Amino acid sequence: MKTQSELYRDPNASIEERVEDLISRMTLAEKAAQVQAVSLRDSTAAEEGGIVQAVRDGISEGIGQIENTFDPRTPIESVREVNDLQRILLEETRLGVPALIGSECAHGHAGQESTILPVPIAMASSWNVELVEKAFDVAGREARARGAHEAHTPVLDLGRDPRWGRIEETLGEDTHLVTQMGLAAVSGLQGGRDGDPGSTHVISAPKHFAGYGQVVGGRNFAATPIDSLTMADEVYPPFKAVVQEAKARGMMASHCEVDGVPAHGNRRLLTDLLREKWGFNGYVVSDYNDVPRLEFFQRVAETVEDACDMALTAGMDMDLPVGAGYANLIKAIEIRPELEKELDVSVRRILSLKFELGLFENPFVDEQAVQEIVDCAEHRKVAEDIALESIVMLRNEGGILPLKKAALRKVAVVGPNADSKQVGNYTVGRSEISSFLDGIKGAAGDDLEISHARGCSIAELGWDGSQTTLSQKTLAEEEDSIEKAVALASAADVAVVCVGGTTETSREAFYVDGIKGDRATLDLLGNQLELVKRVVETGTPTVVVLQGGRPYSIPEIAGMSVALLNTFYLGQANGDALAKVLFGDCSPSGRLPVTIARSVGQLPMYYSQKRISFYKDYLDEEPGPLYPFGFGLSYTEFEYSELRLKSVQVPMSETVELSLKIRNKGACDGQEVVQVYLRDRVASVVRPDKLLVFFKKVFLEVGAETTIKIVLCPEKHMSFSGRTGERIVEKGWFDLEIGGSSVDISLRSSFELV
Amino acid sequence: MKTQSELYRDPNASIEERVEDLISRMTLAEKAAQVQAVSLRDSTAAEEGGIVQAVRDGISEGIGQIENTFDPRTPIESVREVNDLQRILLEETRLGVPALIGSECAHGHAGQESTILPVPIAMASSWNVELVEKAFDVAGREARARGAHEAHTPVLDLGRDPRWGRIEETLGEDTHLVTQMGLAAVSGLQGGRDGDPGSTHVISAPKHFAGYGQVVGGRNFAATPIDSLTMADEVYPPFKAVVQEAKARGMMASHCEVDGVPAHGNRRLLTDLLREKWGFNGYVVSDYNDVPRLEFFQRVAETVEDACDMALTAGMDMDLPVGAGYANLIKAIEIRPELEKELDVSVRRILSLKFELGLFENPFVDEQAVQEIVDCAEHRKVAEDIALESIVMLRNEGGILPLKKAALRKVAVVGPNADSKQVGNYTVGRSEISSFLDGIKGAAGDDLEISHARGCSIAELGWDGSQTTLSQKTLAEEEDSIEKAVALASAADVAVVCVGGTTETSREAFYVDGIKGDRATLDLLGNQLELVKRVVETGTPTVVVLQGGRPYSIPEIAGMSVALLNTFYLGQANGDALAKVLFGDCSPSGRLPVTIARSVGQLPMYYSQKRISFYKDYLDEEPGPLYPFGFGLSYTEFEYSELRLKSVQVPMSETVELSLKIRNKGACDGQEVVQVYLRDRVASVVRPDKLLVFFKKVFLEVGAETTIKIVLCPEKHMSFSGRTGERIVEKGWFDLEIGGSSVDISLRSSFELV
Repeated sequence: MKTQSELYRDPNASIEERVEDLISRMTLAEKAAQVQAVSLRDSTAAEEGGIVQAVRDGISEGIGQIENTFDPRTPIESVREVNDLQRILLEETRLGVPALIGSECAHGHAGQESTILPVPIAMASSWNVELVEKAFDVAGREARARGAHEAHTPVLDLGRDPRWGRIEETLGEDTHLVTQMGLAAVSGLQGGRDGDPGSTHVISAPKHFAGYGQVVGGRNFAATPIDSLTMADEVYPPFKAVVQEAKARGMMASHCEVDGVPAHGNRRLLTDLLREKWGFNGYVVSDYNDVPRLEFFQRVAETVEDACDMALTAGMDMDLPVGAGYANLIKAIEIRPELEKELDVSVRRILSLKFELGLFENPFVDEQAVQEIVDCAEHRKVAEDIALESIVMLRNEGGILPLKKAALRKVAVVGPNADSKQVGNYTVGRSEISSFLDGIKGAAGDDLEISHARGCSIAELGWDGSQTTLSQKTLAEEEDSIEKAVALASAADVAVVCVGGTTETSREAFYVDGIKGDRATLDLLGNQLELVKRVVETGTPTVVVLQGGRPYSIPEIAGMSVALLNTFYLGQANGDALAKVLFGDCSPSGRLPVTIARSVGQLPMYYSQKRISFYKDYLDEEPGPLYPFGFGLSYTEFEYSELRLKSVQVPMSETVELSLKIRNKGACDGQEVVQVYLRDRVASVVRPDKLLVFFKKVFLEVGAETTIKIVLCPEKHMSFSGRTGERIVEKGWFDLEIGGSSVDISLRSSFELV
Repeated sequence: MKTQSELYRDPNASIEERVEDLISRMTLAEKAAQVQAVSLRDSTAAEEGGIVQAVRDGISEGIGQIENTFDPRTPIESVREVNDLQRILLEETRLGVPALIGSECAHGHAGQESTILPVPIAMASSWNVELVEKAFDVAGREARARGAHEAHTPVLDLGRDPRWGRIEETLGEDTHLVTQMGLAAVSGLQGGRDGDPGSTHVISAPKHFAGYGQVVGGRNFAATPIDSLTMADEVYPPFKAVVQEAKARGMMASHCEVDGVPAHGNRRLLTDLLREKWGFNGYVVSDYNDVPRLEFFQRVAETVEDACDMALTAGMDMDLPVGAGYANLIKAIEIRPELEKELDVSVRRILSLKFELGLFENPFVDEQAVQEIVDCAEHRKVAEDIALESIVMLRNEGGILPLKKAALRKVAVVGPNADSKQVGNYTVGRSEISSFLDGIKGAAGDDLEISHARGCSIAELGWDGSQTTLSQKTLAEEEDSIEKAVALASAADVAVVCVGGTTETSREAFYVDGIKGDRATLDLLGNQLELVKRVVETGTPTVVVLQGGRPYSIPEIAGMSVALLNTFYLGQANGDALAKVLFGDCSPSGRLPVTIARSVGQLPMYYSQKRISFYKDYLDEEPGPLYPFGFGLSYTEFEYSELRLKSVQVPMSETVELSLKIRNKGACDGQEVVQVYLRDRVASVVRPDKLLVFFKKVFLEVGAETTIKIVLCPEKHMSFSGRTGERIVEKGWFDLEIGGSSVDISLRSSFELV
């Protein structure tokens, strides 16, 4: 049913008309090509002359998407590369359909020279929604400037198991926090909440839909046997929110299964729930190679053709990164011809997005513009702002911090992470990261002498031919090195000991390839604890700085007379941000987005467990977490007062309105994160002990006071899955707990839903 | 609607007629009394002159059940006590309704002088179904002989988290093993599979229905958020089997919740599933105080009257141990009069059982008989037989075992568990337990010199006014004591080091009372590992004997040149059984009913995890379990051969029939546990890696051979919950793995369901 006028090329026609016209012209092979991708990382293509050659040679039917994740090119090289590719598709394929270009933007666009932001769990530590949106706006702009249209970002999985190597990619453990941070991330990437990335931003494909954070034992790629209430009330809400409130136009499925059915072959999840119930209007992309995994890994399909059929029928639109499953689609359709209808559905979705993005009119990006956008001054400022706010002060025994430059002569900066320039996974390397040492040196000025020694190593990773190996130095091997650092500390007025993990010891594990990244203990590796102990024993005031991808269980350090800062990875502004906090240019304002357990045997320890689960102690472990969710100290002090409820009895159809005052009663300016927790006293099912329902970060100058107004909506903040599985609100009493962390409660009140 | 003839007293009338007649005569208060209990442990009653007095004074309306768990009286005193109580009920209440008497029979009847069997997890280690049935037959007979009618036994929860203090009460981690052991236990207690305990046995009330073994973090009383497939395919089957195949007449609900609804208020669980779907015909009893807990603990009821309504409506028939909830039933019925109908339903069930048990004709037990039954020679023999078969040999480096008496002069028996006479929880103390030292001394004869020193302690438990405290001695504190033991070991020809846990360090934790029993680490407490190391360093051949309530993570010991035996707790025959194995009178034949993890950070480690979960390694831990499920060594060797399948293609309506030969090719008689595992190659949902579907323990003399015939039924052994939640069987290929443990596979084959 071709039309002569090539309606699909007419920018004045409606998108629907253009899609229908185009799809009617397509052969089966051309349609199958639209649900597949090629990868710029694909080594085979590179060997044969690069991806450009591969596009020329192999994909005369076109291609749906080009994966340009972890882009090693300079911005201008990227632009030239992708423009070349689009030109080939436009000019040398029969129908001239441009490709979507996919990217990663976990904490900045993963491309050479891009602005590197703190890792997601660090950004979540800022508890600053506006700043997080700005950070993802930076990532979205930089990605689009070099030709990308979509980012496999953000991770909305709940980070509840610190053994899991990917916890650094999460936005924390809590559904409400992840939801708010997720909304900020999607809005930032897509350039607003209208679902239209325009010509400056990218489509956000949140991941991993759904439940991937709950891999058993924190083992990446393990099963996710999640009960239906946890799924409905805790795992799904961030995904639902970004679909409905931020109009995310993409969605990446999880490696794992929901009710035993792998996400990639789960129609109930990808179609019934996501599209029909939530109204998702975009395209679903596969996590890498998960379509063929239905056959060879999860074993729910007999053949790869079965896997294709199952995935496409489920609503899996795009097989990333190289169509390893959907390359078999034509054969699958030969086996079951009705499958072509499902293919048409997915192709329509993909073409629609391409038309919406204006790719048929202009798929090219500008060489000049990219240079002005990538890591521009404004973006660098955002990177520093959010790094500053991501630092969490866990302890400040004896007021060691902030350091008073005037009173100091020598500062020893020691430890394996003192000069390590680590930024975490999902970035492309760059050299001008500021290490902690760099930052402290830069801030120190001329009157302050900075000494440095590594002290000890963390661990060495190797490869035994089939898998990652880990080796840690013995104390004897590092005795000299440690003593050198201790001597520096001893001779200094203050010691900064930088310990923690490395990008390699906390990362995405690919078990099929033998690459490990999950841990069975949460302790500091190697001789790091010994280094800290000895430095503290010198009597020199000591600041311990933790840097790594997971929250470490460091009960011994938490018991020492030290200052303790948690940073995760702070991105490119790393050392500069730390120095500002150390020297008091800025009061630390980060708060923990995850609970820190005392030891691995306590897991799970997230704060919002069922009320019957949490306050139970082990015989051989101190009670409770080492540091609670939401916790973080400041250089100043805040006073909460005048909690007022508009009404104590609230009809279920109305909102609960309250206000409170908060005053900076300390000696310096600072930010407080006001946190509101809600406890449902009695419900028809067993409920979490309490839930975060509101938070707001406020800046207050010394002596200043402000009023915070809070509106809670029963349907949003008090609803849960009841005995029938439907989401309900029940009348009755609720307790409010308001303060600076999940356990530091300054104000309490109660209201009754009637 | 009274009848003049008092039909309910007529033994010739049908039970139904008798029940209807009796209930028609009852006042509301008399009916409410029938769903309540009093406890012989109740201290208030004791203060006021004992339970007899309490019955006299307080319960003129009668009483449903008298709890006589942990009976501290001698058998004859027990009989007199309960006969007195029954006489009062018969003679001094208006209608003369006798009481059911409840007991605990976890590993022998929990009463003074009763036969003490190995703890359940040890009995499960025997993998000897016939012997386990005999063991529970002993318990059932001894319970009934002293007046009990019901036992809150067996525990059918899956023991998958060794942190959990109650893991010793389970029958292991695996659904099939627990099912077979559970069937044996119920049949033993009830005296057969017809559901009629007659006058010699008791009603079995398996527990805890359902999912209690999966408390999060191994924290007793915590939530049990279990996904629906795990629940249906792994948690429910043992309960379903004992209801349908062994006609269990009682059932105890779990402290925990199913789909967020506490078991005690869960009609879908207690009525829809248990009665309507499975056909349960008996009475449901509460776990202690769980009816009022609906209000004050799980907070699903506003008031205790609501809790009563919820529980009774759910199908909770009997409120144990003292009716703390149902004491408020009359008020609850005032609030909602329709509730009386539910009360009538429960009362009918309870009265029916009383009539069935013949209590109206004769509720008394015989003083003479009890003395002949309790701990009689036959029962003592069963206790020793099963203790012998419960010992698992995990290592025998260099063939240290069996010890050759003739070649030895001195044996050092050291360690904190060498002379500890521990039998685990759920028993009433008695003095004539044989400690390991006793057993070895007894077996040694005159020519062998046995030396003994404790070496070190395990831990001291205390009480800080609100909760259990744990203190462990430092190495310095025990240096002298350890050296004394090491000196004995050094001077001996062989050292037996008995380490592990204590009844108090692995027990049921009552968090509301501050009593702890769960652990956050799985290591040996105190200086035990140091003791073992030093003894081994002496060069004296060393046998390490583990005794305790949980599987300990002992990777260092597993790497030493030692013999290693796991015993859990072996009951009254403890030391005698160990000695027989040590000196080679009997080859060890126990097999692990649980996986032993290398460390707590690896959890969960049960063998039957989803195929995508299990074979994933942590960066900082050796791969796989320390000892796999089903593992255990022998003094002899077995050879598997001639696996024959009747047919490789099997119609789904037929059975899979196979046979194999097994030969004792070693130098002594012994027993092998033939284990058959099944892997479903491809299924519509993600399946466990493999599942135990058959096991059989066989005794073979030296050189003997036997043929094992195995029949697998698709509906039973190959079914699972499919995508719709219904239990299905799917055609396709299955792999058989047959051998002496879950990883020691001697024979492999495959078949196809067509």
